[in-house]
Amino acid sequence: MSIIDRLSEYFAHFPGIGERQARRFVYFLLRAENGYVKDFLESIVALKKNVARCKSCFRFFESADKELCALCASSATDQSLLMVMEKDSDLENFAQSGTYRGRFFILGGLVPITEKDTEKKVRAKELLAAAQSAAASGLKEIILAFAASPQGEHTESYLRKILAPLSIKHGLKISSLGRGLSTGAELEYTDPDTLKNALKNRS
Amino acid sequence: MSIIDRLSEYFAHFPGIGERQARRFVYFLLRAENGYVKDFLESIVALKKNVARCKSCFRFFESADKELCALCASSATDQSLLMVMEKDSDLENFAQSGTYRGRFFILGGLVPITEKDTEKKVRAKELLAAAQSAAASGLKEIILAFAASPQGEHTESYLRKILAPLSIKHGLKISSLGRGLSTGAELEYTDPDTLKNALKNRS
Amino acid sequence: MSIIDRLSEYFAHFPGIGERQARRFVYFLLRAENGYVKDFLESIVALKKNVARCKSCFRFFESADKELCALCASSATDQSLLMVMEKDSDLENFAQSGTYRGRFFILGGLVPITEKDTEKKVRAKELLAAAQSAAASGLKEIILAFAASPQGEHTESYLRKILAPLSIKHGLKISSLGRGLSTGAELEYTDPDTLKNALKNRS
Amino acid sequence: MSIIDRLSEYFAHFPGIGERQARRFVYFLLRAENGYVKDFLESIVALKKNVARCKSCFRFFESADKELCALCASSATDQSLLMVMEKDSDLENFAQSGTYRGRFFILGGLVPITEKDTEKKVRAKELLAAAQSAAASGLKEIILAFAASPQGEHTESYLRKILAPLSIKHGLKISSLGRGLSTGAELEYTDPDTLKNALKNRS
Repeated sequence: MSIIDRLSEYFAHFPGIGERQARRFVYFLLRAENGYVKDFLESIVALKKNVARCKSCFRFFESADKELCALCASSATDQSLLMVMEKDSDLENFAQSGTYRGRFFILGGLVPITEKDTEKKVRAKELLAAAQSAAASGLKEIILAFAASPQGEHTESYLRKILAPLSIKHGLKISSLGRGLSTGAELEYTDPDTLKNALKNRS
Repeated sequence: MSIIDRLSEYFAHFPGIGERQARRFVYFLLRAENGYVKDFLESIVALKKNVARCKSCFRFFESADKELCALCASSATDQSLLMVMEKDSDLENFAQSGTYRGRFFILGGLVPITEKDTEKKVRAKELLAAAQSAAASGLKEIILAFAASPQGEHTESYLRKILAPLSIKHGLKISSLGRGLSTGAELEYTDPDTLKNALKNRS
Repeated sequence: MSIIDRLSEYFAHFPGIGERQARRFVYFLLRAENGYVKDFLESIVALKKNVARCKSCFRFFESADKELCALCASSATDQSLLMVMEKDSDLENFAQSGTYRGRFFILGGLVPITEKDTEKKVRAKELLAAAQSAAASGLKEIILAFAASPQGEHTESYLRKILAPLSIKHGLKISSLGRGLSTGAELEYTDPDTLKNALKNRS
Repeated sequence: MSIIDRLSEYFAHFPGIGERQARRFVYFLLRAENGYVKDFLESIVALKKNVARCKSCFRFFESADKELCALCASSATDQSLLMVMEKDSDLENFAQSGTYRGRFFILGGLVPITEKDTEKKVRAKELLAAAQSAAASGLKEIILAFAASPQGEHTESYLRKILAPLSIKHGLKISSLGRGLSTGAELEYTDPDTLKNALKNRS
């Protein structure tokens, strides 16, 4: 296989990238200045070297040999709330919205509906440990923040089940994000489930 | 103007129809059997003759000289709830979802953000009268069910204002549909407002 | 079935219209003024009464009891060219482009690839008659102008076959529209067949 | 700026990639095995080291210190035809279509319509040299193969102008790819220019 084909295959594994665009990436790099490509490569090396998962919330952060990310280390973080999410980009989007000041936990995936070896797929054990330890330092509520999809809902019900003993023991509330009309929703085209939730959650 | 052009112009006023599709409608009718077109025309005549607005909720219904639609006339309808909506197709979608058993009211439009002659644009006066009369027969809550858009929100705040005296007088609750994640929402791509509402309405 | 449902079904048969939009059409007519709807209905009646197929090219035209459309009746029309097309909207688009001054013939459909009763599906016999008579008044070339699709190509090859005897007898050229890059085509994304045609038809 | 942000910016310069997807690439690399990322980086290094532009047609190829790509070096290549194209991916798509056996030349861009320093933007001088030398070894025709867009057409007319003296001197034909219906085109929706070209290029 030619080196152009080989690199195209790497790019074709990037999220959302097909074969054609993968090739365009290769030509882009071919046309790029050597200096630019060198800086790009060094950025990737630095990324893998300097970015680690936070030992507490498991998000990626620029560690500089620290164990905890800024959010987990900060005293400004609301210790009474812990939001459990699927992945880093979910966390980032939520953090950017500026509406939440509590702690996070990255589960690392969704629980497959045909449950099998779940503990190997997601950080279920780590979540239990984190919740246990947080309960000792003021945790009041665990917010399950997953996609409004069958797999997201399945993940939430799985987590509610395994968190139940802890919840009872420490009086923790387990909540899910509210369902209803999202921004821009028109009633004429809204699906029955969303209407049902919007009606139930009216206020 | 040719008759083909003239009829095309009529169809081009239909919702969502451009010039090209309007012409395709004309050719469709030209190719159609005379009998089919005759039945189609008679359906429209029958529609305009037999369908009227319900005197209570202002939805369209096949009247047969009755004043009230089946929902308004039925004793099975929950008299304690009144859902105010923009238009018939909103009502139809909500009714089909099977999650609501109360009464409806069709406002006939959204309140323009630059409010002016609002009473001529929407059935504000008629809503007040309907709410007043419903309060006498068991109404407990008015649900404002509008699109999650700036104009929808403006309409709700306008209605809350004009309904306030009645609400106080009769102890009516005024509610809005819940905001949050709609079916299929992924947290990575959800807008800040929806995240904020989903967090606030968590349960 | 309610009259609203019944009329919705009629509209759902219009080209490109689904159930939802069909219902929106019904509500559009319900909200429309009676006078507007009356004029609309009269336009349809007038359409079916006054528009007929031209006896020569079979396009629809406002006949006023004439047998031939303006193009067929006009002495300005180039009698040496006859363009055979699938349907009226094809003809209209070509006529509007202003690049062709010859005669037209509407075949009334494409020839199904699994040929069977073809003569009942398209105006094959009428085309032969029209070409025969046109040959007597100066016809030099028949242009087959069909979609660049398998069925369009099949139709052209069927027509070439049945037109062959006439073509030989009267020395008529039978041509097809040129294939190649259409406006806006980018070479990176162009399909192999179009590239092949564009190369073959280079000039 | 964090290293995550910095690498995101690099990816956001890749063709067709926005900020969000750039970040997803970064997280993809963070989650990837170190070995995988190492191989990926080495592929890029190898690409920049081993892939060079062919000295004759200016396409990228795996050089191994050779000066000419396989196509330019092969005796099977038809020396009588030279196809001039904008970029490597155009060439690749054409080569894959299997309809052309001649030589290629990559111009390296389109000629801006507001012509200025054109010679610095595209390989105009190199094209003249290549055509001159090819004329000595059997070249008969130069095929200008550019997008069917205003800039593509402008590029072709610019090249025709600068190639004119050579064309006269050596009796070279200068051609452009054929215009007409591309695969799948329907006559009802085809733009006037394409119809005009399809009519002109009928056969």
